[in-house]
Amino acid sequence: MTEPMSKGDQTKQAVLEEALDLASEVGLEGLTIGSLAKRSGLSKSGLYAHFESKEDLQCQVLDAAAAAFVDRVLAPAMKQPRGEARLRKLFDGWLDWECDCHSGGCPFISATVEFDDRPGPVRDRLTKHLHDILDVLARGAEAAIEEGEFDDRVDTQRFAFEVWGLLLAYQSYSRLLERPNALAQTRESFEALLGRMASPTN
Amino acid sequence: MTEPMSKGDQTKQAVLEEALDLASEVGLEGLTIGSLAKRSGLSKSGLYAHFESKEDLQCQVLDAAAAAFVDRVLAPAMKQPRGEARLRKLFDGWLDWECDCHSGGCPFISATVEFDDRPGPVRDRLTKHLHDILDVLARGAEAAIEEGEFDDRVDTQRFAFEVWGLLLAYQSYSRLLERPNALAQTRESFEALLGRMASPTN
Repeated sequence: MTEPMSKGDQTKQAVLEEALDLASEVGLEGLTIGSLAKRSGLSKSGLYAHFESKEDLQCQVLDAAAAAFVDRVLAPAMKQPRGEARLRKLFDGWLDWECDCHSGGCPFISATVEFDDRPGPVRDRLTKHLHDILDVLARGAEAAIEEGEFDDRVDTQRFAFEVWGLLLAYQSYSRLLERPNALAQTRESFEALLGRMASPTN
Repeated sequence: MTEPMSKGDQTKQAVLEEALDLASEVGLEGLTIGSLAKRSGLSKSGLYAHFESKEDLQCQVLDAAAAAFVDRVLAPAMKQPRGEARLRKLFDGWLDWECDCHSGGCPFISATVEFDDRPGPVRDRLTKHLHDILDVLARGAEAAIEEGEFDDRVDTQRFAFEVWGLLLAYQSYSRLLERPNALAQTRESFEALLGRMASPTN
């Protein structure tokens, strides 16, 4: 049985939700104890009880985003059979996540551009989460090979790289360029990518 | 004959170069008349002679980046024969641009994430430049069809979308994740993409 959340945990959870929304709008770097205090109506000293520093806040927000990604994207995919079905569910969930998760789009994608040239603990945390997510894609492709659905010559790292590219392109086509066919285009490219991976005997 | 640049034009050109570097580090939104004054050593009032407002500065920086992209990436590609050779040169030049152009990476890619949810003249300018660049890719694919190198059933818009995805994925694999094979991976995916476009009779 899951323990009920304490009042303190509930507050922190709610604050992290607000922090995620704020970060998705102003960028993770724009997220400070001060800006979060304004947004949440909590005092700065109250926030310092939860977050030691701006960097600690930024790292915790990334962890909260990763936990939300697991809940909303990974967990539903893991309920699908290994192989293509799971990869398709993962990709679909990821597209939904890009669309709806936060007002300013996927926090990882925004942070990628923001922190690529800012060494430090926040960049390290971000990199760790991204490596993890890309590993899920590569392992998903390995499973599809084991299931006989993907050709065993498939380069699973390249598969992960190309799927990541489609997700990034989708983000800019839908959010910035507002191309009405962005979603259809992305799905079409993903299905074609799956098709190219297919085992010849499948 | 090209007119020699006036001293005022030379100053402005130099300031725009500094502004581009600054924007690539702190983001276009972090670029202000004040931060540029600090960086360049010019007075704020001196800068206001060149830029009416922060937004005007941001738009002019995007225009300067687009002009640099034309010089360094598009113009060399246009000297290649129409078709695959030109597309390959364009892609190669673009990868170089991602690597070297500015300390913080491609200003368009950074700005894409920053401005996707900030309506206004800067976002409009950015969108215009991006549409233009993506059109160059799609028109390049059309030319390859006309030259008989690409299959005439190729969806040139999808081609542009997928190339854009590879460039974005390259940026995060090389700059953030620092994967040593990022460049080789990206070239491999691009060559495979060209291969899939090939006319069956070619």
